[in-house]
Amino acid sequence: MKTIFTLLLLAITGLAGAAPKEASPIFGVTIPDGYRKWQFIAPAHETPPLDELRVVVGNPVAMAAIEKNQLPFPDGTILVKMAWKHVQSAESPAAYVPGAASTVQVMVKDSKKYASTGGWGFGRFINGKATDAAQHQTCFACHQALVKDHDYVFTRLAP
Amino acid sequence: MKTIFTLLLLAITGLAGAAPKEASPIFGVTIPDGYRKWQFIAPAHETPPLDELRVVVGNPVAMAAIEKNQLPFPDGTILVKMAWKHVQSAESPAAYVPGAASTVQVMVKDSKKYASTGGWGFGRFINGKATDAAQHQTCFACHQALVKDHDYVFTRLAP
Repeated sequence: MKTIFTLLLLAITGLAGAAPKEASPIFGVTIPDGYRKWQFIAPAHETPPLDELRVVVGNPVAMAAIEKNQLPFPDGTILVKMAWKHVQSAESPAAYVPGAASTVQVMVKDSKKYASTGGWGFGRFINGKATDAAQHQTCFACHQALVKDHDYVFTRLAP
Repeated sequence: MKTIFTLLLLAITGLAGAAPKEASPIFGVTIPDGYRKWQFIAPAHETPPLDELRVVVGNPVAMAAIEKNQLPFPDGTILVKMAWKHVQSAESPAAYVPGAASTVQVMVKDSKKYASTGGWGFGRFINGKATDAAQHQTCFACHQALVKDHDYVFTRLAP
C-alpha cells in the first residue's frame, strides 16, 4: 500500500513536470528560476574565514527600483547572491577567480508575509539544499543591525 | 569660416542623435551600448597594484557560445570587463565592495578584421575615454602568452 502511494506521488510529481522546490526553513523561500541570467548589481569579495567572491543579481522588479533609487524595495523584489571560493588564477597569479560554488542566498520582498523581518524572506542554499533553521534565524538580525537604513540590503549598484 | 564648419559639424552630430563614439587606437573598438545590463560571466579580484574588483559580461553571441562550450568564440562576440577599486565595506568590514570605477575593457571578435591578433580587437577605456596606443599594444601579447588555448580569453563561466 505504501509502495502504491509512493508511486502515485512520483507520478503526480512527474506530471507536474518538476520535483518540488527546496524551500528555506522559517521563510519558505525557494531559489528562483533563471536567476543566473539576471542583471548583476555588484560583485564583492568576502575575506577569510568565508574567503569568497560574490555576485548579487536582481530580478526585473529589483533592477527597476534600483534605477529609480526607490527605497524601500517594492513587493516582488528578489535578490540572489551567488558565492564561490576565492581561488588564485593559475593563468594570471595576481588575479583571484571563482572556485567551487559555496552558497546561493535569496532575499524576497513581501511586506505582508514577512512583516516581522522588515518585509524580507531569506533563503540560504548549499548545492541546492536549504540550510537549517538555526542559520536562517541569524539573517535578519545582522541585516537589521548593519543596513536598516538601506531597506536591510547590503548591496549597492556598482557604478 | 572655421566657426561655420564647427557649427555645421555640431549640427550634423546633433541630427545623428549622439556624439561620435570614442574608439580605441589600433583596433577602433568602442564601448557597446547597453553592456551594463548584459549577463555576467564571472567576477574576479585583482590584487595590488591594480587592487580591483571586476565583473566580465558577455553579449548574447558570447553567452550562447559559452552555453555550448563553443571555442573559438564566433564573430560578433563581445566581452566587456568592468573594474572598480577594491574597497572595504563600511557596513561589513570583512567584505570588500566596488569603489570608484577604474577601467572598462572590451574584446570584440572579428576573425578577418583582427586576424593578426587572434581574431580579437581590444579597447581599454577610462571614464569613457580610450587609453593610448602604447597600452593597446600590450593587450594581445599577454592574452597570447597566457590563454592561447582558451581562444585568448581569461574569463571562464562562474559555476
